[in-house]
Amino acid sequence: MSQQLRQRIFTEIDSVSLIDPHTHINPLAPSSETLADILGYHYYTELAHAAGMPVEEVEAPGIDPKEKVARLVGWLEPLTNTSAYGWLIELAREFFGFEDEHITRDNWEALYDTSAAMMASPDWPKQVLKKSGIDAVFLTNDFDDPLEGFDRRVYIPCLRTDNLVFNLAKPAVRVRLEKASSVNVSDAKTLRTAIGALFDHFTANGARACAVSLPPDFCPQKPESAAKIDRSLAILLSDGESASADAQRSVSQFVFWTLAEFASEYRLPFDLMIGVNREVYPTGVYQGHDLFDSRWSLLQYRELLNTFTQVTFPISVLASTANQELVAHAWMFPNVVTNGHWWYSNMPTFIERDAAARLEAVPRTKQIGYYSDAYKLEFALPKFAMYKRILAKILAERFVVDARWSEESAVLLGRQILRENVERVFSCG
Amino acid sequence: MSQQLRQRIFTEIDSVSLIDPHTHINPLAPSSETLADILGYHYYTELAHAAGMPVEEVEAPGIDPKEKVARLVGWLEPLTNTSAYGWLIELAREFFGFEDEHITRDNWEALYDTSAAMMASPDWPKQVLKKSGIDAVFLTNDFDDPLEGFDRRVYIPCLRTDNLVFNLAKPAVRVRLEKASSVNVSDAKTLRTAIGALFDHFTANGARACAVSLPPDFCPQKPESAAKIDRSLAILLSDGESASADAQRSVSQFVFWTLAEFASEYRLPFDLMIGVNREVYPTGVYQGHDLFDSRWSLLQYRELLNTFTQVTFPISVLASTANQELVAHAWMFPNVVTNGHWWYSNMPTFIERDAAARLEAVPRTKQIGYYSDAYKLEFALPKFAMYKRILAKILAERFVVDARWSEESAVLLGRQILRENVERVFSCG
Amino acid sequence: MSQQLRQRIFTEIDSVSLIDPHTHINPLAPSSETLADILGYHYYTELAHAAGMPVEEVEAPGIDPKEKVARLVGWLEPLTNTSAYGWLIELAREFFGFEDEHITRDNWEALYDTSAAMMASPDWPKQVLKKSGIDAVFLTNDFDDPLEGFDRRVYIPCLRTDNLVFNLAKPAVRVRLEKASSVNVSDAKTLRTAIGALFDHFTANGARACAVSLPPDFCPQKPESAAKIDRSLAILLSDGESASADAQRSVSQFVFWTLAEFASEYRLPFDLMIGVNREVYPTGVYQGHDLFDSRWSLLQYRELLNTFTQVTFPISVLASTANQELVAHAWMFPNVVTNGHWWYSNMPTFIERDAAARLEAVPRTKQIGYYSDAYKLEFALPKFAMYKRILAKILAERFVVDARWSEESAVLLGRQILRENVERVFSCG
Repeated sequence: MSQQLRQRIFTEIDSVSLIDPHTHINPLAPSSETLADILGYHYYTELAHAAGMPVEEVEAPGIDPKEKVARLVGWLEPLTNTSAYGWLIELAREFFGFEDEHITRDNWEALYDTSAAMMASPDWPKQVLKKSGIDAVFLTNDFDDPLEGFDRRVYIPCLRTDNLVFNLAKPAVRVRLEKASSVNVSDAKTLRTAIGALFDHFTANGARACAVSLPPDFCPQKPESAAKIDRSLAILLSDGESASADAQRSVSQFVFWTLAEFASEYRLPFDLMIGVNREVYPTGVYQGHDLFDSRWSLLQYRELLNTFTQVTFPISVLASTANQELVAHAWMFPNVVTNGHWWYSNMPTFIERDAAARLEAVPRTKQIGYYSDAYKLEFALPKFAMYKRILAKILAERFVVDARWSEESAVLLGRQILRENVERVFSCG
Repeated sequence: MSQQLRQRIFTEIDSVSLIDPHTHINPLAPSSETLADILGYHYYTELAHAAGMPVEEVEAPGIDPKEKVARLVGWLEPLTNTSAYGWLIELAREFFGFEDEHITRDNWEALYDTSAAMMASPDWPKQVLKKSGIDAVFLTNDFDDPLEGFDRRVYIPCLRTDNLVFNLAKPAVRVRLEKASSVNVSDAKTLRTAIGALFDHFTANGARACAVSLPPDFCPQKPESAAKIDRSLAILLSDGESASADAQRSVSQFVFWTLAEFASEYRLPFDLMIGVNREVYPTGVYQGHDLFDSRWSLLQYRELLNTFTQVTFPISVLASTANQELVAHAWMFPNVVTNGHWWYSNMPTFIERDAAARLEAVPRTKQIGYYSDAYKLEFALPKFAMYKRILAKILAERFVVDARWSEESAVLLGRQILRENVERVFSCG
Repeated sequence: MSQQLRQRIFTEIDSVSLIDPHTHINPLAPSSETLADILGYHYYTELAHAAGMPVEEVEAPGIDPKEKVARLVGWLEPLTNTSAYGWLIELAREFFGFEDEHITRDNWEALYDTSAAMMASPDWPKQVLKKSGIDAVFLTNDFDDPLEGFDRRVYIPCLRTDNLVFNLAKPAVRVRLEKASSVNVSDAKTLRTAIGALFDHFTANGARACAVSLPPDFCPQKPESAAKIDRSLAILLSDGESASADAQRSVSQFVFWTLAEFASEYRLPFDLMIGVNREVYPTGVYQGHDLFDSRWSLLQYRELLNTFTQVTFPISVLASTANQELVAHAWMFPNVVTNGHWWYSNMPTFIERDAAARLEAVPRTKQIGYYSDAYKLEFALPKFAMYKRILAKILAERFVVDARWSEESAVLLGRQILRENVERVFSCG
C-alpha cells in the first residue's frame, strides 16, 4: 500500500514543470554532443579513478570522444551500485531508448551512435528540456561573462563570485575584473566600484542570483577600516599570489561583505554553498580534487545573517552533519532559505534524512527542494527524478502515514518545494 | 501489518500515565487562558517571524490577546508542514473539539471563543492533566523561587541554575542570591554557603532535580585555588558585567563545580542540557534568539563525570550529531542517563534516529524517554503523542520486526522509558 | 512483501562463507572455555557496570568463572534491550541449544554446564568456525608476536602497531622492539631498521595487513629532519614516559610515517581505525575505559593519502558523523577503502545509515562490509548475522524497491561486500 501511495504521489509531483535553480550549464552548448560529455562528468571519472582507472586514461591530450567512452565503459562495472550510475542508466533509457540493464563493453557502441545522432539534432537542447519538464535553468556565470547569445528566459544568469572572493591575488583575475568593470582597481573604494559595475551588468541582463562556494573555515566579518583594506589590497597588487595570508584574508573578507551589500542593494538572493575544501586531492581527475569537512558551524555566519536582514540567503551545506544547523537557522532567521542537496550530500540516504528534517521544521515557503548542479542538460532529468522519488517517499511515509495528512495536501507541499518556492525566492518564472 | 502493529503498540504505551520530567510550567498559572498563550509559544512566533512576520506584529505593547491570535493566524499557512503546527492542531482537536483540517482566518475566532470558555473553568488545569494522562510535571524554578502556593506532588520543583553559573556578574542576580540565601556573598567561601542554602531550600520543598543549560564551548573543570576564585569574585563584585572574561569564566567554573558538589551531597540528579548558543539572533521574537552549534564533544565533561560518580547526570544534547557520543557515555558511565529530545532535536526525524540508537545501546534503565519542555500544560499531550508514535514505530519496526521481539516485551520497554525510569532516576512518583 | 524480500536476500547472502578481516582472536585459544569468556566480553561488563554493577563484582582477584557468570547474570535484565545482548541470546541458541527468551537467575546454570561441556570438545573451535560459515579470521598481533603454533591459513596474522606509534616512550616497549627485531634502537635510522625487521617477520609469516587505532587529534605528517627525530628519540630513551610531549609526538609521527613506507614496500594494506580517545573513564571495567570524539576530519589524513598512493588504507571510523567524509574519500581516493562498522558504530541504526551511504556512493569494489572485532570465535556468528540482516534490509528497501534492482543483482552486491572484497583487498582466501 505504501508503495502504491508513494507511486501516486510521485506521479503527481513528477508532472510539475521545473525551474532548475542551480546548474553549470553552458548556455551556448547546453546539451551533450556525444556520450563523452555524459560519461566525462566528474562523478564518473572520479569514481572510475577511485576504482582503479589511471587519470591519464581519460585525460591524455587528444583522446577522441568515442575512444574516451570506450575506455570509461571498461571501468563502469565497479560503479554499478552508485546513485551516479543510476542517473546514467536512467538518462540513457529516457533519452536514447536504451533497454539493457547495464552499459557494457558489448552494447556501448550502439548507444554511442544512437545518442550522437539524436544529439546532432539542432533542437536537441529543446527536446531535452521538454522531456525533462524544465522551463528554465539557472547558470553559473563567471563575473566577466558577457551574458550574450542565449535566451535569458530559459538560461537565467547567476553571478558566481568565488574568483572575486578568493582569487583576487591572481593578476589574471584582477585584469579580468578591471576589464569587465571598466574600473581601475587600486584601493577599497575602486574595488567596490568595480564590483558594483558587475551587479549592474548582471542585473541588467536578467541575473536572478549571486552565488559563492565557501570553505569550512570561512567566517564572514564586517570589514576592517578602509585604510587597512587599502593596505591589504596594495600588498595583493604588488605581491600577487605570494601576498601574505593576512592580506589575502583581509581582501577576501572585504569582497565578500561588499557582495552582500550589493546583493542587498540590487535585491538579489545570495546563494551560499558552504563547506568545500579545494585541492585536497590535487592529482585526481579533472574537477575531482575537492572534498569537504564537518568541522564548522553556521554560527560563523552570525554577523552576516544579522547584518543583511534584507538579503535572502539560500544556503547549501556540503556536509549532511550541518543540516540540522541549517534547519534551525531557516526556522529562526527570516533571511535563510534551505537550498537543495549539494554534491557529496546529493545521494538518496542523505537527501532522505536532510529533506525530512527540513520538511518537518522549516516553513514550507523557505525551502528550495532541489537543483541539479548539472553541466549538461541531460542530467537534470535523472537527478530530479531521484529527488522526486525520495520526496514522494518522505511525503508518503512521514506525512500521509505517520502524520495522517491527506494525499492532496502532501502533493501540494511537494509542488511548493519543487517549483513555487523557486519562483518566489528568485523572482523568476 | 506493520501499521497495525505500530498502532497496537502505540495504544498500549499511550495508556501509561506520565510524569513529565522537564517543563517550564508556571505552577501558579499552569494552563492557558486564551489561545494567545498557545499561539504565543515561541515555536509559532519564531516560525511565523522566519516566514515573514515582523516582530512588532506580536510584540508591540498592549496587544489584546484576541488581536494577537488574529495576527498570528494570518501567518500560519507557511508553517502547516511543521511538527510544531501538528501539535497545535492536535491539541485544538483533543481539548477544544476542533474539527477542521487547518486553523484559518475563517475559523479561528470560534476556536478562540470556545477554548477561552473552557479555559475559564477553575479546574481546567486538572482537566488538562487528566486528559493528558499526566500525574505530575517538573518545573524550572529560578534559584530564588519561594516554591509556595502550589501542590508540590503535582508540580515538582527543579532548581534551575543558569543564572548562578553564567550571570553572577549582574548585580541584580547577586542581590537576589544574597536575599534568597540570607548570605552576604564576598568570597568563594560565602558564595559556596549561599549556594548550599539554595539546595537546603529546594530539597526541603520537594525539589527532585537541579538543572542547567550550557553552551557548546563550556568545559567543566576542577576549580582553581580559593585565592584565585576570591580574586575573580572580587572583580565581579566591583566591575559587574564589565568584569574580565577570565574572572567571569573562573567564577562560572567554580559555581558549576560547587553545584555538582551539592548535587552529590543532597543526592539530587543534575540535568545537563548541553549545546545552546544564546543571543545568536538578538532581534528575533521573544525567546527566539538562541541557536546551537555542533562543534563540541562530551569529552569536555570527562573530569566532571569521573569526579562526581555519585551524581546522576541526565543529559540532553541540542545537536543530534552529539547523540552517538551521548549514547556511548551512557553505556560506559554509571552516572550518565540519556534525557529526552531537546528543542531543535525535538522533531520526528531526529527523535527517530536518536531514540533508536539509545534503545539499541543504552541500558534500558538509563533512558528518560521524553519531556515536554512545555510552558503551558496543553502542550504536553501533543508533544508526548508525537514521541509515543515514534517510539511505537521504533519498537514495531526495529524490535518486533527486525529483532523479533514479542509485542509484549516491546511494550514493556516503552513503558519503562516513558514512566518507570522517571520515577527511579528522580525518586518521584 | 518487503519482509519476505528481505528474508530471501538474507538467506542468499547468509550462505556466503566468510573471511573475518578484523578480530582480536587468540589463535592459541580461539574459542571460549566457559560462559565466563562470553559474558566477560567488555560489552557486557561495561553495560552491566553502567547499569550499576560495581567493577569489583567481576574483577576481584580469583573469582571462579562460574561465580563470575552468576554475578553477571544478575545484571543482565537492564541490558536486554541492547544489540549486544541480542548477540548473547543468538549465540546461546545457535551454539548451545538455548531455548528460553532470556538468560536469567533461573536458567543460566544449565546453560553454563551445557556450554562448558560442548566447549571442552577438542575440535570446538573448528565446530564454531564451521557453524559460523567462517573460513579464516584476521588476528591482531602485537609487534613481537612469534606467530607460531597455529594454522596461518585459518588465523591470518595482522601487525598491530599502536604500541610502536604511541608507546615507544615506555622502556618495556622499546626493549620488546629491540628483542623482536634484533636491532639496537638508538636513532631514527636504527628505529627504521627495527620496524623493517618486524615487517620481514610478519610478511614471512603470512601477515595480510598492518593496523593501528588512532585518536581524533592525530594528524599524520611527513617526518621532520632525521636530526630532529634523533634528538626526540634521544629524549625518549633518556626520559621514558616523562619525555616532553613534543618529543613523543615527533617520534609518533616518525613511526607512523615509517609504517606507511613499509606498508608500501611490503604491499600490505594499512588498516586505520580512527577516532578513539583512550582512558576517558579510567576506573571503568577492564577494556571499558575508552570513548570517542566527533571533532575531527579525514582532512587530517590528506598528506598521508596523497603521499602513499600505492598503499591501500581500509579505514574505520568510530563516529558515525564521520561516515560521510569516509564515503567521499573512498569515492575520490583510489587508496581508500571503507572498512566495517567499528565498536560504538557497530549497532543496527548506525550500521544501517552508514552502510546505506557507502552502498550508494562508494565503488562496490572498495567496501569491506563487516568484521566481527571478536575476542572469541563464538561472537562472529551473531555479529555477522546482525550485519547481514541490516544489509539485506538495505538491499531490499533501497536497491530492489527504491532503485528497482533485481533481487539477483542485489544479492551479488551483498556477496561482494561480504566476501570477495576481503579476498581482493587483503590478497587472501
